[in-house]
Amino acid sequence: MTIQTILEAMQRKYKSQISQSCPHDYDDQMPEFQVFFNDLESNDFNTLFTSLPQDRQYLAAGVPGSFHGRLFPESSIHFVHTSFSLHWLSKLPEELQNKASPAWNKGRIHYTSAPNEVIEAYACQFAEDMERFLNARAKELVPQGMMVMIMTGIPKGMPYSQIPTGMLYDSISSSLMDMAKEGIIEEGEVDSFNLAFYAASPEEMAGIVEKNGCFGIERMELTNPAAWMKGPVDIPTLVTHVRAAMEGMFSRHFGSQVMDELFGRLTHKLLDISDLINSTCQEKVQLFAVLKRK
Amino acid sequence: MTIQTILEAMQRKYKSQISQSCPHDYDDQMPEFQVFFNDLESNDFNTLFTSLPQDRQYLAAGVPGSFHGRLFPESSIHFVHTSFSLHWLSKLPEELQNKASPAWNKGRIHYTSAPNEVIEAYACQFAEDMERFLNARAKELVPQGMMVMIMTGIPKGMPYSQIPTGMLYDSISSSLMDMAKEGIIEEGEVDSFNLAFYAASPEEMAGIVEKNGCFGIERMELTNPAAWMKGPVDIPTLVTHVRAAMEGMFSRHFGSQVMDELFGRLTHKLLDISDLINSTCQEKVQLFAVLKRK
Repeated sequence: MTIQTILEAMQRKYKSQISQSCPHDYDDQMPEFQVFFNDLESNDFNTLFTSLPQDRQYLAAGVPGSFHGRLFPESSIHFVHTSFSLHWLSKLPEELQNKASPAWNKGRIHYTSAPNEVIEAYACQFAEDMERFLNARAKELVPQGMMVMIMTGIPKGMPYSQIPTGMLYDSISSSLMDMAKEGIIEEGEVDSFNLAFYAASPEEMAGIVEKNGCFGIERMELTNPAAWMKGPVDIPTLVTHVRAAMEGMFSRHFGSQVMDELFGRLTHKLLDISDLINSTCQEKVQLFAVLKRK
Repeated sequence: MTIQTILEAMQRKYKSQISQSCPHDYDDQMPEFQVFFNDLESNDFNTLFTSLPQDRQYLAAGVPGSFHGRLFPESSIHFVHTSFSLHWLSKLPEELQNKASPAWNKGRIHYTSAPNEVIEAYACQFAEDMERFLNARAKELVPQGMMVMIMTGIPKGMPYSQIPTGMLYDSISSSLMDMAKEGIIEEGEVDSFNLAFYAASPEEMAGIVEKNGCFGIERMELTNPAAWMKGPVDIPTLVTHVRAAMEGMFSRHFGSQVMDELFGRLTHKLLDISDLINSTCQEKVQLFAVLKRK
C-alpha cells in the first residue's frame, strides 16, 4: 500500500511537470519504476513476493541485508522510504551488562526509568547506527534524491516513562522483577535482558543529520500515531498486540513456559494504570523526517 | 559459484584494461557489482538469500517473475546469464490435447517419437517463448551488453529418441501405457500429460535470434554435459536423480500412490536398453550461446 501511494504521488508529479512542457505526449513517457524491498535476510521474502499485486505498475526486487550497511550501487536510487525500523539498534551497548559500569541496567529491560548513563549508552549506539545508515544511503542516493523516514520518536526532554510505551516497558520490568523475587525466573536474567530500541527527539535526529552533513532536512516533526483512536485503550487487547509483536524476544531469553505468567501479570499492572495510559496516549511519539541528498 | 566465476572474469578483464591506461590506481577503481537472482515467484528465495556467501563482493537482489516478460528497467543490465531454464516452455501447446488435431499427442508424454505435427507444435511454442525472452532482455540490456545462455540442445536433424533423455521419455511413456493397459491408471491420463520442454539445435536457435534481430551471435555451439563421466551409466542411480527432479510433475497428475510403480517399471525398461544409453551418452546435448546486444 505504501509503495502504491509513493508511486501515485510520483506519477502525478511527473504528469504535472511534463504536461507543462509538452502537453500532448506525457502518457507515453511515464518512466519505469523499480522498487527494492529491503529487510534482514531472515525476513520471509517468499511471502512478500507471492503477496505482491499481480497488476503492479513497477518492477520488484527483494534485497536481503542490514540497512546499516551498503545495499545498492553508488548513486543508483532516487527515493528511499523507511518505515518503523530505524529505531532498532544494530546491537545492544555492551556496558548495559557490565556490573562495573555506571550504565549497568540492573532490573530493567530498557532505558525507561534508568539512570542517565544507561540512556546515554542507548543514545550513543543510536547515533552510531544512524551515522552508518546515513553514510550508506548517501552513497546510494542520487544528488537531490529524497528519503522519507518514519520511526518511533519522543518530544525533546520528555522522560520515556511518561509515554504509554515507556509505561509498558516499566510494567514488563516490574512484572519480571516480581517473578524473580518469587523464584519463577532468575534476577540475573532480567539484568541481562535489554530491548534494543531507541526513540529520538526531532532535535536529536536533526543534530545527527547535520553532523553527518550529506542531507538537507526538508521536514522533521513529531506526529501522533494514535490520532485515529477513539475512546479509551482496551488493555487486554493492547497486551495481545504487544505479545504478538514481542513474545519471541522474551521467550528466547526467559523460556516459553513463563510467557503466560508474564503477560498475565503485565495485563494486571497495565489495568492498574489505565487512566494514566489513556491520559498520555495522544502524545506525538512518531518521528517523521524528510531528507534530501545534497 | 557461477556468479563467482563471472565476477572474477569481469574483475580480471577490468584490471587488464585499466592497467594499460593508468597502471597505478586500478585497485581503487574496481566498479561495484550488483547481482539480480531471478526465478518464478514460487521459488524459495529465503533459502537463496540465507545461502549467499557472507563475504560476497557484490550487492545481491532477488527478482521474482517469469523471464518471458520484463524483469528490469530499460537499459539497466550489463550481463545476463541463464542456466538450464530456457528449454522450459511458458505453457503447453493446446493442440497436444485436441483429439481432432494432427498434433494430438496420444500415448506419449513428450514429443520424443511423436509425429511431426507434435514436434512442430512444441517448436512453435519454443520460438514464441524465445521471441518474448529476447525482446524483454533486449530492452533491459545496455548496448553491447552480453548474454550467456546454457540450456538443453540437440544436433540438427537428430531425432530426440536417439539421445539418452529421449530414451528416458520414451521409457516413461511406455511404462505409463503399460500401467494403463493393466488398469492401474487411465489411458486418458497419459494422453493429457505432456512435459513442457523443448531442445533446440544451434541452427534453430540461431534462426530465432537472427529473426528477432536485437542480438549478434558471438558463440552458438553444442557441448557435452556428461564429458566428466567415466564408465557406464548406473541406471538405478540415474532413475533416483530423475525421480528427485521430476516426481512432483508426475505425482500431481497421476497421483503419488503410483509413483513407486512408475519408477520401478522405468528402472527395468532402462536396464534393458542400458547398452544403447551408454553408446549415446557422450552426445553433445547442451546448447551454449553467447549473444551481444546490438
